[in-house]
Formats: sequence, C-alpha cells, structure tokens
Amino acid sequence: MLILATALCMAPAHAEDGYELWLRYHPLAAEQATIYRSHATQLIIGSATPTQTVTREELQRGLGGMLGRAPPLSDAVTSDGAIVVGTPASSPLIARLRLDTKSLGNEGYLIRSIVVNGRAATVIVGNNDIGVLYGAFHFLRLLQTNHPVDHLDLHDSPRVKVRVLDHWDNLDGSVERGYAGASIWDWFKLPDWPAPRYTDYARTNASIGINGVVLNNANANSQILTPTYLEKVAALANVFRPYGIRVYLSARFSAPIELGGLKTADPFDPQVQRWWRTKADEIYKLIPDFGGFLVKANSEGQPGPRDYGRTHADGANMLADVLAPRGGIVMWRTFVYSQANPDDRAKQAYDEFKPLDGHFRANVLLQVKNGPIDFQPREPFSPLFGAMPKTSLMMEFQITKEYLGFATHLVYLGPLYEEVLSADTMAHGKGSTVAKVIDGSLDNHALTGVAGDANVGSDQNWCGSDFNQANWYVLGRMAWNPTQSSRLIAEDWVRMTFTNDQAFVKPVVDMMMGSREAAVDYMTPLGLHHQMGPGHHYGPAPWDASESEADWRPVYYNRADSDGIGFDRSSTGSDAVAQYAPPIAAQFNDVKQTPEELLLWFHHVPWDYRMRSGQTLWYELVAHYTHGVDDVQQMRETWRHLNGYIDPERYQQAAAFLAIQEKEAQWWRDACIAYFQSLSQRPLPPGFSPPQHSLKYYESLSFRYVPGFSSW
Amino acid sequence: MLILATALCMAPAHAEDGYELWLRYHPLAAEQATIYRSHATQLIIGSATPTQTVTREELQRGLGGMLGRAPPLSDAVTSDGAIVVGTPASSPLIARLRLDTKSLGNEGYLIRSIVVNGRAATVIVGNNDIGVLYGAFHFLRLLQTNHPVDHLDLHDSPRVKVRVLDHWDNLDGSVERGYAGASIWDWFKLPDWPAPRYTDYARTNASIGINGVVLNNANANSQILTPTYLEKVAALANVFRPYGIRVYLSARFSAPIELGGLKTADPFDPQVQRWWRTKADEIYKLIPDFGGFLVKANSEGQPGPRDYGRTHADGANMLADVLAPRGGIVMWRTFVYSQANPDDRAKQAYDEFKPLDGHFRANVLLQVKNGPIDFQPREPFSPLFGAMPKTSLMMEFQITKEYLGFATHLVYLGPLYEEVLSADTMAHGKGSTVAKVIDGSLDNHALTGVAGDANVGSDQNWCGSDFNQANWYVLGRMAWNPTQSSRLIAEDWVRMTFTNDQAFVKPVVDMMMGSREAAVDYMTPLGLHHQMGPGHHYGPAPWDASESEADWRPVYYNRADSDGIGFDRSSTGSDAVAQYAPPIAAQFNDVKQTPEELLLWFHHVPWDYRMRSGQTLWYELVAHYTHGVDDVQQMRETWRHLNGYIDPERYQQAAAFLAIQEKEAQWWRDACIAYFQSLSQRPLPPGFSPPQHSLKYYESLSFRYVPGFSSW
Repeated sequence: MLILATALCMAPAHAEDGYELWLRYHPLAAEQATIYRSHATQLIIGSATPTQTVTREELQRGLGGMLGRAPPLSDAVTSDGAIVVGTPASSPLIARLRLDTKSLGNEGYLIRSIVVNGRAATVIVGNNDIGVLYGAFHFLRLLQTNHPVDHLDLHDSPRVKVRVLDHWDNLDGSVERGYAGASIWDWFKLPDWPAPRYTDYARTNASIGINGVVLNNANANSQILTPTYLEKVAALANVFRPYGIRVYLSARFSAPIELGGLKTADPFDPQVQRWWRTKADEIYKLIPDFGGFLVKANSEGQPGPRDYGRTHADGANMLADVLAPRGGIVMWRTFVYSQANPDDRAKQAYDEFKPLDGHFRANVLLQVKNGPIDFQPREPFSPLFGAMPKTSLMMEFQITKEYLGFATHLVYLGPLYEEVLSADTMAHGKGSTVAKVIDGSLDNHALTGVAGDANVGSDQNWCGSDFNQANWYVLGRMAWNPTQSSRLIAEDWVRMTFTNDQAFVKPVVDMMMGSREAAVDYMTPLGLHHQMGPGHHYGPAPWDASESEADWRPVYYNRADSDGIGFDRSSTGSDAVAQYAPPIAAQFNDVKQTPEELLLWFHHVPWDYRMRSGQTLWYELVAHYTHGVDDVQQMRETWRHLNGYIDPERYQQAAAFLAIQEKEAQWWRDACIAYFQSLSQRPLPPGFSPPQHSLKYYESLSFRYVPGFSSW
Repeated sequence: MLILATALCMAPAHAEDGYELWLRYHPLAAEQATIYRSHATQLIIGSATPTQTVTREELQRGLGGMLGRAPPLSDAVTSDGAIVVGTPASSPLIARLRLDTKSLGNEGYLIRSIVVNGRAATVIVGNNDIGVLYGAFHFLRLLQTNHPVDHLDLHDSPRVKVRVLDHWDNLDGSVERGYAGASIWDWFKLPDWPAPRYTDYARTNASIGINGVVLNNANANSQILTPTYLEKVAALANVFRPYGIRVYLSARFSAPIELGGLKTADPFDPQVQRWWRTKADEIYKLIPDFGGFLVKANSEGQPGPRDYGRTHADGANMLADVLAPRGGIVMWRTFVYSQANPDDRAKQAYDEFKPLDGHFRANVLLQVKNGPIDFQPREPFSPLFGAMPKTSLMMEFQITKEYLGFATHLVYLGPLYEEVLSADTMAHGKGSTVAKVIDGSLDNHALTGVAGDANVGSDQNWCGSDFNQANWYVLGRMAWNPTQSSRLIAEDWVRMTFTNDQAFVKPVVDMMMGSREAAVDYMTPLGLHHQMGPGHHYGPAPWDASESEADWRPVYYNRADSDGIGFDRSSTGSDAVAQYAPPIAAQFNDVKQTPEELLLWFHHVPWDYRMRSGQTLWYELVAHYTHGVDDVQQMRETWRHLNGYIDPERYQQAAAFLAIQEKEAQWWRDACIAYFQSLSQRPLPPGFSPPQHSLKYYESLSFRYVPGFSSW
C-alpha cells in the first residue's frame, strides 16, 4: 500500500478527459478536509446485499478520494465522527435508534447528526437499501460542495416514481440525435463483456436518482426483442440492478408480425395478445425486474393500433395487461401527428389523446413532450398537461440538444425545464402547475414519471461536451423533485464538476443560467420555432420549404410574408389556444396579453406592430437576434477570465466550443435577419450591423454527415 | 507546486483505460529510478522549432513521469548525467562534438554516452529535428524497458522512406473493418476543434516512426477533396506536422466528374489533367507538405483508368505528374480483381500489373497486399514481390483484424509480418527476401514504403482491446526496419505497456508469439483461406455460397468435396504457382515439396493423403482445428496465473476477451469440422471430440450489425 501511495505521489497528473463527470471525489482543500475527517472517523455499514455493497464502495471511494483516506469500517460506534449507514431492517444498531422513517417511502432517506452510544455520529438511513444509496450520494455531495456536516437534519424522497433516461440508440451503434459519439451499448460484445463503463453509467444515474433506462430508440427495431438481444439486455440489467435502475425497452408495435410471423399486430387479435404474453414471459425469465415498454405508435411512420382501427388506448392497454402481473408499465408517447391531417400540428396530440382520458389502464403512463411541437428552444407547455385528469401523464424532456446547438453550444437546460414545470395550467384554478400534474398531486395519481431523452454516448466525456453533463445532471435532480431551483442545481453541479472556488462558481452559474435565453434569442426569439435546417436540424433555414411534409418546413411555422410574421393559433387562426384551460386560452388568444416571448407562436403579427417597449416588432426581432449574439460574446469574455481556475483540458475545450457557438450564433442571427428582411422590406434599425453575407449565400449552404442524423 | 504535489498524493489512482498506450511513463521502481536519475541530471535542448519544442516536452513528460521529476533545463553541461539533445545545425554545443552523422540520413539519430566539458553526458543527435525526436523516443524506451544507459552507442535510421497508416475511415464517422468504435476524426467539429486526441495520436505514431497518415477510406468519397473538408484536413496536418507526419488522402478517380462537373475522368483528357492540377494547387496552398494520394482504382466497384481503356500506369502517372512538382507521391493499390474475369482471383493482381513494370513514374509506389488474396490468417507472399524490378513496390499489411478475430481475439500480428518479410522470392537467387524488395535494396529503389491498415478508432483504448495496441506498435517498428524480430518488439511492447516484471513479460510474450498460429489453426489451417461469414466476415461459414460473386464465396476457396479439399493452383490447376520465381514455382507446384502450412492453398488433396506425420490429411485437419482451440485454452490458463501483475481494469478486459476467443475458436473448429465431415464422410479420428452442435445449427446462425461492416 505504501509503495502504491509513493507511486501515486510520483505519477504525473492524468489529463482531464471529463469521464468522472460530477463524481470526481478529488482531494478537498486541506483545511476543509481536516474538518470533514473529524466527521468521518469510522464507517458502519452492511454488505449483505449488492446495493449495500455498492453503497459501501461508493462511500469509501468518495471519502477516500476527498479526504485522502476512507474511514475504517467498523461494527459499532466507538468514536466521535462515526458514519452509520443502513436500514432499520438490516441494522439492529439503526433499529435501536427508532428513527421515524415512515415519511421516507421506498426510495427516501434521512441524514441526521445524532448521538449514538454517547458519540457524535451521522446516520444515513432509509427504509430500503436504495434509499440508503441515494442518501449516501447526498452525503457525499455535501462534502463535494463544501457544506457543513456537523448539524445535519435532512430527509428527502422522490416526488416522482418513474425517473428514466430514454436512449435513442440504434442496434447498429448509431444514436438518433446523438452528439456524443456512438452508442455506449456495445451490443456486439454483450453479454460476454459488461464494460466497466456500464457500471459507471449506473453509479452516475443513481447519484441523481434516475431509476430506469430505456435502452433503445423509440423508433424501435424489433430485433431487440429476439432471444439474442434479450440476453444482452439482461447482462446490462444485471449491472444496473444494484443501483436501483430497471431496464425498459422500446417495443415496435408490429413485432408480432416481424418476429412472430403473424399476419397482424391488431391489439384485439388473440394471437397477437398471446404473442406478447409469451414474449413477456421470456423477458421476465431473464430480467425479473424488467420495467416495461416504451411505445411510439402511429407517428412518423411507426406502426400502431390505428393501423387496425383501434385507439391508442386499445394498443397501450393490451401491452399493459401483459405487463401488469409482473409489475411492468407501458410508457406510451403522445408525440403523435399525421401529415394526412391538415390541421395545425401543434393541436394533433391533444386532439388524439384528450378524448381517451380515463380509458388507460392504471399501469400506463402517457409520455408527453414538454411542448406541443418538438423540444424547441422555447415552447408553451403542452395543452395536454391539466387536460387529462383521469390519466397519468409523464413529462418527456430532451436532454440531447437537437434544437439547441448539439454538442458545442453551451446551453444549460435547467431554466427551460423549470419554466415548463412551474407553468400554471389553471386546470383547477391558480397554482395548477405542470409540476403538480407530473408529481401526481393535482389529480392524485400514484403512477408518475419524468423521462429525459439522453445525451449520453461513447465519447470519453459521455455527453460530447463537459457543459452538456450539466443537462444530464439537472434532468435527474428535477425528475426527483420537479419544484427545485435550476440555479441551485447548477451551483451544485459546478462545484462538483469543477471547483468550489466562488470566483469561478458565481460567474459560471450566471453564464449557465443565461445561456438558454441566449439560444432562444439567436435561434428563435419572440415565439418563433422550428427554423432549423431540414432533416439534420443544423443551423438556420427559415426559408426552407424543401421537406416532403408541410409541417416539417420552417416556412410552415414562421408564416412570414410582406405583412408580418407568426403562426396565428388564436380563434381567428388554428385556434390551438382553445386547447388550454379557459383563463390561459383567453390570455394566449389576445395578442396584447400573450407574453411577448410567445407572441409569434400564437399570433401572426404585422412588422410594424408596437411591442411593449414602444418599438416595432421588426425592431424587437432584430434586437433579440442581436442580443443573443452579444450574450454569447459575453459568455466567451466571462470564460476568458476564468483561465487557471480549472484543468487546462476542460478549459480549452469549453473555450473552443464557445468560439464555435459565437460563430454559429452570428450565422443564425444573420441568416434569419437576411431572410425576414427580404420579406419585411424594411431597413435594419439604426445601430444594428447588417448580415455578414447575402441571403443567397446562407441559402446556398448545405451540410452532409451531420451527427445524429445521417445514419453512420 | 507543492500543493499540487500534495493533492496528487491524495488523489485516487485513475482507473486504467488503455488510453496511454505504450507511452505511459509511470514511475519506475525506486532503485531503477535512482540509477537513471544520475543519468538525467540536466537537459540541454533547443526549442527554436515546433519539432524541437515537442521533443523537449516529450522528454520532460517521460523523464518526469518515470523519475518523479524532469531534469532541469540548462544551456550548458555543468554536471555529470547531462542529456544533450539536438542537431549540429541547431546546437553549437553539438556541432563542437564533431559527431559523424553522415550515415544517419534525414530521419536517423545516434544516442551516445560521451564526455562533454569533462562531464559524463548522453547525447541524442540527428541531422534533422525529426531524427532527434525519434532518438528521444528511443532513449525514453530504454528507460521504459529498463535498459542500462551508462554506455550507450546507438545509431539507427529507417530503412523505409514512407511509413504510413491507412485509415479506412468514412466521412460519416463509420470505419470500414473498424473494431474500435467510430472514426477518431471528428470531421463535424473540425477545423475549429483540434481535439487533444489528435496530438496524442501523432505522438504515438512518431514514437514508432510512422511518418504519414492516409486519413480516409481507400473506397473514397470525393467530398474529402472539397474546400470544406480540405480545411478540416489542413487542421489535422497542422497538428501532425511537428511530429514529422504528413497527411495523405484517398482520391476517388472520378472526382473530376463528381466535383468538377466534367463528362469524363479519362487520364488523357486535358480538362481532367487541368482539374487535378488545380485541385493540387488548392491542396498545397492549405497543406504545403501534403504527402499525396492513395488510389484504389478499378476494383470492387471503384472507378479508374480502365473505364476509359487506359492502364493503371496511365492513371497513376497522370496523378503523379500533378504531384511531382510539390514532392507528392501516388500510392496506387494493386488489390485489383474483377468478377468478370473467370480466372483464379489470386492471379489477377499479378496479371494486371506485371506487364506494366517500368511504366510507372518515379513518384509512384505500387501498394501490394502481403498475400495474393486479402489479409487471410496465412497466405503465401504476393507473387508481385520480386516480379517488378523496375517498379517501387510498397507493402500493405492489415493491422485491423478483419480476418483474425476483430477486437476480442488476442492475435499478435508480428509473426505474420515477419513471416512475409523474411520470405525469399528468389527473384535474384537466394536471399532475395520480400524485406529487400520493400526496403529497395534488391533493385535499388529510392522510394520505398510500408502501409498498415489502421486499427485505430474512438474507443478510449484506441484499438478496441489493449492487446490490439501491440499490432499498431509492431507495424510501426517493422516499417522502420523490416528485418527486426517480432519477438523483441513484442517484449518491448509488453514492458512499455504493462510491466518490466519478468514473471509477467516472459509468459505474455510467449503467448503473443504463439497467438497467430493458434488463429490459423482454429480458423484456416493447412493453407485454407477465406472461410469466414459472408460480408461481415464474422465467424466460420465454409459452406457459404450466398455471396453474389463466386470469388467472395468460401466454397470457391476450399473446393471441398467427397474426394478431397483445397484449391489446385498447380500447373494442373489455375497455375498460379507459375507467377513465382522458378525455384519457388517448382516447390509450390509439387504437392510433396509444398510447405504443409500452405498445402491447401496450392493443391486439391485427397482426404486420405498421407501427411509428413504419417497421418491422413483428414486427421491433420481435425488435429489442427483442435490444436487451435487447445492453444486458446492454454492462453486463458496462462493469463489466469498473471492476475495481480497489472491493473485490474486491463487484466479483466483481457480475461473477458480471451473467454470470447475460446468460445469463438471452438465455434470455428466445430463448424468447419462439421461441414468438412459432411463431405469427407469420414469418422472423427479417435480422441477428438465431435462438434458441439449439428452442421444445420452452424449453418442457421446469422448476424446483423456486425462492427466494421453494416454501415452505422
């Protein structure tokens, strides 16, 4: 051991590659470590179960890394500063403490500074092993963020039951809308090679409370349900299990035809039902705690129950009945629209699902994207939230930045998530927030959920950029508690990921908090949406009408012409506003009352329309685009002053990516202004620089091999 | 600094991920380090050029890592143990030493223990910066492998001029026959983000003398020649330049049509010639030291000069004339065969190119694969070697293990390379080895080359497995000197990559040295070849006739029937033997004289044919397959006893991969025996276990999403 230590002393510092994410456990500043050591003199923790074992290992790794040595394991509290970890059921010592753990539920925990056998101790207790693991991660976080630990009295438990990452990973190793390299699932080497990375993935998720993973793309390949692949899936499930993570699969609705050789996938067909039952038997034999299916049906070319004249409820319930006996659930996506339907795409999910309220089984969760279109930089909350009181709705947020700059733009999504969750649906009057729909409190639903579309890939830093890691982190933290402050979460993340130095933490958190609004401004200000390049979604293309389907075209959404710009969704237009609760509908229906940040989402507005600032719409549009670019320049400036606070590797990458972001923000601003000016026929307001190139130039740009789109 | 050191002392050991390859520079054993420190008391080295700077950095990194601290930089030798590094031109101090450096050439170096200013010093000297960098890496290797450094008198220079890695990387991020993840070239983020990995890639190549890189797949996409991509290529060239590495590109022969809008790509067409000249101007403006083009023409669907009735020489010379004024070269592949040609595929490259001997420009290298077919576990050397005395032939070896177990099989390719290079072509009588053809000494060629088809990808360990790194390493070392011993190179690699502990080094080197013969035995013994699964090349399929083209089918090559097995290439058959020099041809033509390891390559042999062992061919065939599996079991056994000598991460991965290799070796053995037995109609010789499954079972296996084949 001593030799090893010496060796370590002489070892050159390993170049930072971002792999450790927020679980770095690097040595704390000496004085800080000294204080904490007095609160970590011994560790009393069981190892009777796999989860207890990994909890012990995590505490030893974390405390050992931060304090220089892990506290010795012990069976009894014999000195001040003991850490006692476990459940009343597994530890007589803890049972004797008679702590009130009722409120903690299955996954909750308490962390308390108490006296045990006359010694000052910290107890980390839950009703189940998994709660204890979550508590251990929370305790480690307190040290990572330099919180005092001498008078702790914390208890916490998740407000949402199903907290999952949805991977859009294909079996060929590509990742739809993935910007962090190939899929992390090395299917070819599974089940024989359970790479250590899978364990670190599970640790990382457990540290933020994620308790489920959908392994494969919602645009599903039925091969995942073949015996060959189920064996591979089971190998991953075995790695994840100790960390409280259940495996889910995206199921292709037509699998009974493709794999079972049946003529139909009609959910009412007994053979189809039998096929799914047999398949479920097969799955649960391999994976006793299998979580269930995610289904994308009858949308964007996917098969589904509507192919047989059945409703989405018919399809979902058929699968739900198959899974119910094993405690499995169905997550059924409401992201449904049809190009055959001429109506406003923003209305179609509501029109399709609202009438089905109350028709879904108890083990079905409808997975609703945060907005009515598709993860745009800003959308109003989906009108489905609050509109289906008899149905469990789960939130689908996108973590991967398909519409927010891919891997290179620094855009912290916390404020976007917070904006949606704190939005008031007014479904039962004031205070009927989306968060209350999601956590089930508004309509008393027991089955609740939040899904994040993963930004994880095989890049060594997991997410394509170090700052993208923050979006994985905040998704987990807000899934656990949808009412949390995205700023406080950002601060935790910065401290855990980079440093506790306030001179770094403060400006970086400020930069992160402003970053999403900056992206909205340089991409789609004032309620504009879906203005990106066709197919690959890279860069601006407000002029584009090349897509085969009308509602895939930017022009369909901006509706810009010589008179004005914006999509009239008021009662004089598509009347999408009517899908909201009356007070909200009235507000959105009135151009004057509509929040200006959503103005062009709901209204077609003349170029000379007077904004609250007293300026014209045209002026404000140009001003917002310009402001977005200015913000990015300011971010670069901020970062320039932070050189030296962190390792050069991660500093340099962020600096290079910010330079790309500034270049592309300028491109967005200039291309959009050039196009809209060609229609508004108005001069640029004084003081604003003209686009760097002609509209022709921007229209001429085309891109191949854009990550996440062109299949590899 | 002290704080950092303390921090390091407390830092937990970073989990081994294989990223450091053989340039680990971890702390040496205390006593060894003490000795070396006395020979590294000060470092005298310039930094006037980028190459000098990286040489200094490498020495500081290496010595700092291995010895705990880097020797202080100094301008003069003031104490015993100084290290003096540079060229006579760049260092007056070195110039005064009047060392004889004539024999070193442009890239060579000498390392000598001498007295300078009355002090014991080590000098590392070359005529050019790049030679000095190579010398620095050699000196570091001496320490890494625990060689004494007190009485050094080494000088070395490469025997081959062009030492390149050919990447089969596509612009969409996939890698043809790649088993180490996606392409390491992140084209999308280039030129703005020159990832640090590119620098480590260049360092690694320079450490083994690689001086060129072909960035893109020989099945070329002409997009690489567009301004957008050339900018990206230039960014990589800038990273590689200080390390003496030139960038080459695979050029699609029809690019003038696809990019230039011409009607033809006829090499005799003035417009075509002008297009290439203009393109070359554009390239050299961005990349002044651009290396040249690799071309795969008129083979496997690629366009080429034959489309216009011109010869390969016509096509190659046209490009050569364009590049010659800038010192660029053309590497023209002889891997040419046509399914229209009914003749033995093994003969076609020779038939096509031999008549063109003497017709190629001086800056053309014909790139010849080591064998007549395609990188099989064992092939005879290509008959082109020795057959084209008036033409510069370069060797093409495959590093990526397309036919040798992909990422998971432990197969060290050194013995394969050595076997080919030491083969005697008899072109000018005895001793006319392939190595002498390659290093130009046989026919006095100045332009010489060795290419290795890279096994590098974006996997953190670069090569898909830690042991695959050895194949990258040995390719570089043997390209530098084709007469080196693959065993000594393996020993260097093991010491640099794992440990100097003889108890580990000896058995691992033995295991590596035997590994290729094991693969030959369990895949294609006794001269069998091309027996792998169709398309993806995964696993055995000796029965397969599903491929569209006859000469892609295993049955085409094994010719097994009730009478016997093997491809008659003697004078009674395809007469491929006649392509070799008379003495070799006579040997291969005679079934009795043909080495048994190549028996079925050249002859169709009855099942009861008596082998030298006295046993029948059928017996020996079964015995070889079985022996191959036994060898892998022995490798696993060897590895099992080596637990604890190295880090658990790399140990566990190798252990898991060896388990996969054993399973797949058994599969190869059983499937091939099952099939051949169905034809030989003979009982298994006593003592050999029957296949674990029926022939039907093995024939029923099919695979999708095999890495390196199905495009992502």
